[in-house]
Amino acid sequence: MSIKTPYLLFLGNAADPLAAKVAQGIKDWRPENCVGQLRLDGCNADLGLTDMTPAEAIANGAKSMVVGVANRGGVIDATWVKALIEAMEAGLDLAAGLHNKLADVPELAEAAKRLGREIHDVRHPSRSYPVAAGTKRSGKRLLAVGTDCSCGKMYSTLAIEKELRARGVKADFRATGQTGILITGDGVSVDAVAADFISGSVETHAPANDDDHWDIIEGQGSLFHASFAGVTLGLIHGSQPDALVLCHEPTRTHMRGLPDFGLPSIKECMEANLAAAKLTNKNAKFVGIAINTSKLSDEEAKAYLAKTEEEFGLPTVDPVRTGVAAIVDNLS
Amino acid sequence: MSIKTPYLLFLGNAADPLAAKVAQGIKDWRPENCVGQLRLDGCNADLGLTDMTPAEAIANGAKSMVVGVANRGGVIDATWVKALIEAMEAGLDLAAGLHNKLADVPELAEAAKRLGREIHDVRHPSRSYPVAAGTKRSGKRLLAVGTDCSCGKMYSTLAIEKELRARGVKADFRATGQTGILITGDGVSVDAVAADFISGSVETHAPANDDDHWDIIEGQGSLFHASFAGVTLGLIHGSQPDALVLCHEPTRTHMRGLPDFGLPSIKECMEANLAAAKLTNKNAKFVGIAINTSKLSDEEAKAYLAKTEEEFGLPTVDPVRTGVAAIVDNLS
Repeated sequence: MSIKTPYLLFLGNAADPLAAKVAQGIKDWRPENCVGQLRLDGCNADLGLTDMTPAEAIANGAKSMVVGVANRGGVIDATWVKALIEAMEAGLDLAAGLHNKLADVPELAEAAKRLGREIHDVRHPSRSYPVAAGTKRSGKRLLAVGTDCSCGKMYSTLAIEKELRARGVKADFRATGQTGILITGDGVSVDAVAADFISGSVETHAPANDDDHWDIIEGQGSLFHASFAGVTLGLIHGSQPDALVLCHEPTRTHMRGLPDFGLPSIKECMEANLAAAKLTNKNAKFVGIAINTSKLSDEEAKAYLAKTEEEFGLPTVDPVRTGVAAIVDNLS
Repeated sequence: MSIKTPYLLFLGNAADPLAAKVAQGIKDWRPENCVGQLRLDGCNADLGLTDMTPAEAIANGAKSMVVGVANRGGVIDATWVKALIEAMEAGLDLAAGLHNKLADVPELAEAAKRLGREIHDVRHPSRSYPVAAGTKRSGKRLLAVGTDCSCGKMYSTLAIEKELRARGVKADFRATGQTGILITGDGVSVDAVAADFISGSVETHAPANDDDHWDIIEGQGSLFHASFAGVTLGLIHGSQPDALVLCHEPTRTHMRGLPDFGLPSIKECMEANLAAAKLTNKNAKFVGIAINTSKLSDEEAKAYLAKTEEEFGLPTVDPVRTGVAAIVDNLS
């Protein structure tokens, strides 16, 4: 089920570095999974990896080529198809997290079948899940929740995993969205699972583990987002989190995509998430707050973090500016 | 998209009347949709409708044959396939709400294609939905919520629709599960929609309407059910309910399917549902409580309803024993 690593990262004809941010994320968080990059004519992104043909990548151990570039609308560029077929012919599986499935491109599906290669369209679950059992599982779990979508949950949880591993603690980031899945090679796009199985899919991907092992579960959406809150609630229940981290972007004026909806306060958001989490884990508690201060000056950021830390009595960090050590210090 | 009415009800070889409860529900709530019944050898159910062949049903106006019988495990009995093909040959579409899809039976799929008939497997959404917009819609909406799954939400909302219509009020039951869809011919199995689109699917099926029109939306699951709460939350947000009805079965000792989870109190359940509903409708309020007292004696039931009504100051009914007039009196 998982994507075979390591990867050749396909940057295609990325218009700029931002268009290759999925590839950048893989390189930042799992450099050991990256043997090289493949760029087409007109590519304006460069991860600083060695440029390789699929054959060269295979000689260096690559097992899959990951589409680490996004076009407007998530479409599959016609100029990519030839390169993707050549990668399969050389012996690589393919993986992508685009809206449109690689497997729906007839030439790609035909080549995969002919050559016996796997195509992983990670935004679309390729397996079925059980209904959640709700049974307590061994091991410890941390989940990121947020006042809104896209406010730093993936970055925060990847940083916490990295910090725990650096301290010699057993920890695994559990991806719940397509970028996280491509980074680690495994996980579930929980927003694409049939509604009945949201919690069950999370139980499956964060299973029982050693008592001293931490699953660091990527959050999705927000209990206060009128479009996606059901996803978030199912994710909370399936995670059975021992530890919650609240993520917030302080300059946002309305919920993402919903101009008529203001953001909840951090306090209101923490109370609602804690009440929801306690249904499947009576001992759930907040262990820290992660603020995305990218739109604040150094001084403003420092003041905001200090004020928030004082108000809630919890380690308050910006994972990029300050790192997450203070939150990890607070895990037990 | 909707199932063409009226129906010939297929009872197959129902082992007993309970096995034909879907057909019974259609006959109880939409008698005008039922032109006759079709029973195979060994059928032990009888709805009191005229037994008809598909050709006779068509002569009486039937447009679809609905599988109103369930087998153990929701499987499609081999003895049904011949009768289902004959119905399509006579000119009827097919509809069913079974776990297994009629359209996955090769002989049925082939016959439907050859004859140009529709097969509606209503448990599996056949269309895509938009992400919820959260925008306030005109018209009024009532939603049933519950302390648990299967505690009377469909029955209560169908009864409220019937009472409103009897009073000359414009009202439409909006089905969110397979039985409700078969009864009315339209709706969405919200638990089978991809998680991102739960709320959006409800917005689609309970669209803007006349200011004096009531959508009476069937509820699903419970905010306190560790397997399905995400479905419930998305349904609440998409419904934007003006009016909420709390459904409860007072003798249940644990959440359905989850022996380790007790039920919430009615008070706790109302508070959580009201908080969730206010995200998309600030004016949401509870208008009544519907108790399933089927396991209580007359005297016990009467006492339970009176006690609950006094405690919450809301009309408290058993839709079967007392009817729902008191709740409808409380709608404005």
